[in-house]
Amino acid sequence: MVNVGVLGATGMVGQRFIQLLDNHPDFEITSLAASSRSAGKRYEDSTNWYLDDEMPKSVKDMIVVETDPKAMDSDVDIVFSSLPSEFAEKVERDFAKDFVVASNASANRMKKNIPLVIPEVNPQFLDMIEFQQKENNWDGFIVTNPNCSTIALTLTLKPIIDNFNIKSVRVSTMQAVSGAGYNGVPSMAIVDNILPYIGEEEEKMESETLHLLGSFDGNEVINADFKLSASCHRVPVIDGHTESVFIELDDEFEIDDVKDNMANFKALPQELNLFSAPENPVIVKDEMDRPQPRMDRNASNGMSVSVGRLRKDQYFDNSFKYVLVGHNTIRGAAGASLLNAELINDIIL
Amino acid sequence: MVNVGVLGATGMVGQRFIQLLDNHPDFEITSLAASSRSAGKRYEDSTNWYLDDEMPKSVKDMIVVETDPKAMDSDVDIVFSSLPSEFAEKVERDFAKDFVVASNASANRMKKNIPLVIPEVNPQFLDMIEFQQKENNWDGFIVTNPNCSTIALTLTLKPIIDNFNIKSVRVSTMQAVSGAGYNGVPSMAIVDNILPYIGEEEEKMESETLHLLGSFDGNEVINADFKLSASCHRVPVIDGHTESVFIELDDEFEIDDVKDNMANFKALPQELNLFSAPENPVIVKDEMDRPQPRMDRNASNGMSVSVGRLRKDQYFDNSFKYVLVGHNTIRGAAGASLLNAELINDIIL
Amino acid sequence: MVNVGVLGATGMVGQRFIQLLDNHPDFEITSLAASSRSAGKRYEDSTNWYLDDEMPKSVKDMIVVETDPKAMDSDVDIVFSSLPSEFAEKVERDFAKDFVVASNASANRMKKNIPLVIPEVNPQFLDMIEFQQKENNWDGFIVTNPNCSTIALTLTLKPIIDNFNIKSVRVSTMQAVSGAGYNGVPSMAIVDNILPYIGEEEEKMESETLHLLGSFDGNEVINADFKLSASCHRVPVIDGHTESVFIELDDEFEIDDVKDNMANFKALPQELNLFSAPENPVIVKDEMDRPQPRMDRNASNGMSVSVGRLRKDQYFDNSFKYVLVGHNTIRGAAGASLLNAELINDIIL
Amino acid sequence: MVNVGVLGATGMVGQRFIQLLDNHPDFEITSLAASSRSAGKRYEDSTNWYLDDEMPKSVKDMIVVETDPKAMDSDVDIVFSSLPSEFAEKVERDFAKDFVVASNASANRMKKNIPLVIPEVNPQFLDMIEFQQKENNWDGFIVTNPNCSTIALTLTLKPIIDNFNIKSVRVSTMQAVSGAGYNGVPSMAIVDNILPYIGEEEEKMESETLHLLGSFDGNEVINADFKLSASCHRVPVIDGHTESVFIELDDEFEIDDVKDNMANFKALPQELNLFSAPENPVIVKDEMDRPQPRMDRNASNGMSVSVGRLRKDQYFDNSFKYVLVGHNTIRGAAGASLLNAELINDIIL
Repeated sequence: MVNVGVLGATGMVGQRFIQLLDNHPDFEITSLAASSRSAGKRYEDSTNWYLDDEMPKSVKDMIVVETDPKAMDSDVDIVFSSLPSEFAEKVERDFAKDFVVASNASANRMKKNIPLVIPEVNPQFLDMIEFQQKENNWDGFIVTNPNCSTIALTLTLKPIIDNFNIKSVRVSTMQAVSGAGYNGVPSMAIVDNILPYIGEEEEKMESETLHLLGSFDGNEVINADFKLSASCHRVPVIDGHTESVFIELDDEFEIDDVKDNMANFKALPQELNLFSAPENPVIVKDEMDRPQPRMDRNASNGMSVSVGRLRKDQYFDNSFKYVLVGHNTIRGAAGASLLNAELINDIIL
Repeated sequence: MVNVGVLGATGMVGQRFIQLLDNHPDFEITSLAASSRSAGKRYEDSTNWYLDDEMPKSVKDMIVVETDPKAMDSDVDIVFSSLPSEFAEKVERDFAKDFVVASNASANRMKKNIPLVIPEVNPQFLDMIEFQQKENNWDGFIVTNPNCSTIALTLTLKPIIDNFNIKSVRVSTMQAVSGAGYNGVPSMAIVDNILPYIGEEEEKMESETLHLLGSFDGNEVINADFKLSASCHRVPVIDGHTESVFIELDDEFEIDDVKDNMANFKALPQELNLFSAPENPVIVKDEMDRPQPRMDRNASNGMSVSVGRLRKDQYFDNSFKYVLVGHNTIRGAAGASLLNAELINDIIL
Repeated sequence: MVNVGVLGATGMVGQRFIQLLDNHPDFEITSLAASSRSAGKRYEDSTNWYLDDEMPKSVKDMIVVETDPKAMDSDVDIVFSSLPSEFAEKVERDFAKDFVVASNASANRMKKNIPLVIPEVNPQFLDMIEFQQKENNWDGFIVTNPNCSTIALTLTLKPIIDNFNIKSVRVSTMQAVSGAGYNGVPSMAIVDNILPYIGEEEEKMESETLHLLGSFDGNEVINADFKLSASCHRVPVIDGHTESVFIELDDEFEIDDVKDNMANFKALPQELNLFSAPENPVIVKDEMDRPQPRMDRNASNGMSVSVGRLRKDQYFDNSFKYVLVGHNTIRGAAGASLLNAELINDIIL
Repeated sequence: MVNVGVLGATGMVGQRFIQLLDNHPDFEITSLAASSRSAGKRYEDSTNWYLDDEMPKSVKDMIVVETDPKAMDSDVDIVFSSLPSEFAEKVERDFAKDFVVASNASANRMKKNIPLVIPEVNPQFLDMIEFQQKENNWDGFIVTNPNCSTIALTLTLKPIIDNFNIKSVRVSTMQAVSGAGYNGVPSMAIVDNILPYIGEEEEKMESETLHLLGSFDGNEVINADFKLSASCHRVPVIDGHTESVFIELDDEFEIDDVKDNMANFKALPQELNLFSAPENPVIVKDEMDRPQPRMDRNASNGMSVSVGRLRKDQYFDNSFKYVLVGHNTIRGAAGASLLNAELINDIIL
């Protein structure tokens, strides 16, 4: 068993880490770190547990430690980070001296030699790790995963870009409130309402997606060569981001080819049979009225993205559109870091 | 005063007609028609009133009549129709022999010589009326308004197409449940959820919008010459459709020019000072997080469309995007028919 | 294995039956019956599956049969009924000639010699079965479970009445929309709203609760001897009924005694270790802000009722109050019938 | 015109004060006070306007001042206070030296000689003012209104207690999220959920109601002589508290007498024809499924409480129950203070 720690353990994504790591065959939580307010207390006493499932018994009595590499058990190999952005950059670098840091925070994404990875999409970016360690003289390293709405979109674009020339992508999102954290969206703001703005979300979706679908030439990442535009909105849904996607290809195509490529898409995590890897990263629904967030967010324990309403545009050439649903705090956050860690554990550690 | 009747008076759009006609300076309700189940009863006794405002006192004691031209008071000049699609086609034609029919039903929209009109967009389509009357040998005629989501979109496209060459439009909607009628969307389907499909909605949005922004050459309508794609979704909002719009122009542009053209847009209803015409058909919001359906649906008594987040695309040439909110049962339904009737009353009757 | 059938298999409670029976150690579904519209089709083709969990593979290809004893496999022993009230009375009697009918329908509840049973509360009412069979000359029999809101309340009253003299109970409910069936509550009626009326619900809660906590003297049921009043309301919650309960006892008491009696309550299903029996029928929460429907409805797979905010009244003598949450379509419907069937299978069949 | 100021002008209740004072025939806002963060700025620039109606033009350009009596225009006579509890006690006392303070804050309610008043219920408590001024040597004074849920309940109890002997009252509330302030209830806590606890709410309801329906003997308040118990819950509703009420009388009664007494209830504000006084403080609905918060919260511009489902208990003697809806931030907060000020302006100033 690999011993792991969780940074930001009391928060919403921290709780998802704990939930997903419970009964994990390869990883065992031995350290939980949080802010000074929680440090020194039992985990159960320091945490307002948000998830519908019960808090795993194994963590209730663990004593929360400070968010400091010295406070971490020395036998820990991997730390999962759901630290707030403002602290994450420095703290994760401190941890990377000695630990593998699998981070869901945005602060170190897109930094030179820090791989931003979705295991099904760009595992080759892990080649950056060697450069990262040399440059910083670290024993550990940092690997990051993208923003929640980016992950769901990119997983569905991967089987398309592998088989067709994408000219442009436009995406309009309908995002769940859990994406903003527990206190992020007041009920007064969202009951019987929609918020048409999520800070920095569109910028992240646009830049991260082109980066993930790009290539790493041993020195830097060359972005994918298509145009992309995102418009992001918050809706009264607890969990599960829905995205409406418009795609333009360079060439003629059959819609059934797109569908088959999505439905049959498998990649490295499936080959390696990683524990958290879904059998199908993308599930294609045939029903007219699917995917729906409440019905489809938990597909493959929240690790698959569901796609539906795949259809050609009647007025545009070489164009089609679809709707996707992905679980934002599982596949889009904690599950993303976990799958990164499983991949690293399998092929690097 | 012009005497008016309402067909489908007990339904949700019928109730909006009654609400909007209460205290109208030019129109007075003298007949309310509904199905046989309601006919013969007092309006108050036959109606499950859905609106937050109280039922106007003036209609409570009116006796509901059958949906039949013979049952209508002979001194009625205009009938407003919110009939179900399956009956509307024939019944509206029966009424058109003697009455002006201002219809919100979809059945007769897009039929040859039946004008589909938004007064601020294509009042010249009313020229079809003469052909319609001759062809059918009618004393009255039918004028229709578009689908709720079409109206909001088209009102914002009009000041753009008047000033720029539109190459393409993609729109993703987040539509209120009232658009489906009172029993249209079960709560089990929409609480903590989104429905990614609305029957025929995308087809209507695409065809109606190109039609409305096209031209009438005295014989037929030539569609506007740009490409259009719609993806339609239902969200847990009572009233107010939100739409996320991506626009591509042929040429370079300044975003402030787009904004100014929208904000300063005025048209015939404003010139004629029609009673239900909003001062500004399009209101441009500067706040980062607007428009929102609960906050903006009632702008100008529900007759203005609010636009916000007007911004250039970073990766696309000559492209921008914005979010709009319009009240689907006022500007998008009853208010649309009413403004059509006010225009006709002013320039034709 | 006991072969079982489901009547009303395509409906919401029918789907819960199928979900709960999937992988059951003692029961195996061999017949699914529904209306003529569905009969003859594959189950998957005839059903709009409502539950978040996927439809079990075992039923997808089963051919739905008519709701008729002759259409049922002859090797079926038990049929679960979630038939609409208007058909249930007669149809269940037809089935009872040859089958054990475990019914969630209200039509035959409270009929003479038809036991209305919660296994933890009044298993002795099963003594009625002998009289029922003799009277009707049936080989099978009918056993019913109470209304969803009654079950949750009564489970919490049982450990109280076993240990104290209850003088009066007043209960105000906040009930989930699933209790009305899939199309029961339009979204227009409940978004940003509460409905203060549920047809016949208060009458059922009052009469059924006094009946269940009463005694069967071999001839008729003597109601429990306390006063009871219910006020029932619908709230925008998908699953899980919340009830606010005010209790008056005859005598002085310690609140911790009430708490201990609830928390330690075990009964026959726990002794017999029935498969669907929760370890604790009543779970007492200490947190200030629990129970909550979204957090607690799935306790013990939806079979436990969660109680919280147990506190004395400051102005009333011998009085206390609490809040409960129970899953209305599991413990309150399909799970209730299933536990009845498990009890019967264990002690009668 | 009486010049008035608003303390806490940028908050949710502060905004309701501004909305209700717009176009008021007797009061004119001349000062808006808020925290240091807002002081010195234009009101429009310092305020995130929460209400669906637009911000009144008259206040947009007003410069917000510090919450300090010296910062207030000297020609102000009345200040409305919606200060946070933690500051209200001292600050309101500072203002009371020179101003009439009509407060919605809870801090000074129930203090000796500070009247807690609902104009329709206990206007005679204003006699305390003379004692208050003498004791403190103030030129101004403080008058307070009760908690939102208390006001709605007490308004419906007043016509009962005036005509019958109340033995006991039990009330279970379903309260809107606006009652907790804009950021009070996270959407994560309330979408598809109910919160069964509101801090100090039950204590306030119980003590304030007995106080308001009691008598002032020139020295202290003698509580009303009946028993009262409240259980308070938060529901996913924006505005409008719903309460389920169980009443026990000492004697036999006719339910129609209760109904008539409620429906015909008029009191001092109606006699004096105060501007904000509703024609009927209590509106009795006959429809089976009313009152509902979304439909009835705005009755009489939010100043009436709507009552429905008035019915006898079948098992209890001398008992009945009903459901009420009142607008929590209008009749339950800003409108309550305003009506107090109108009463004072009419009979004292």
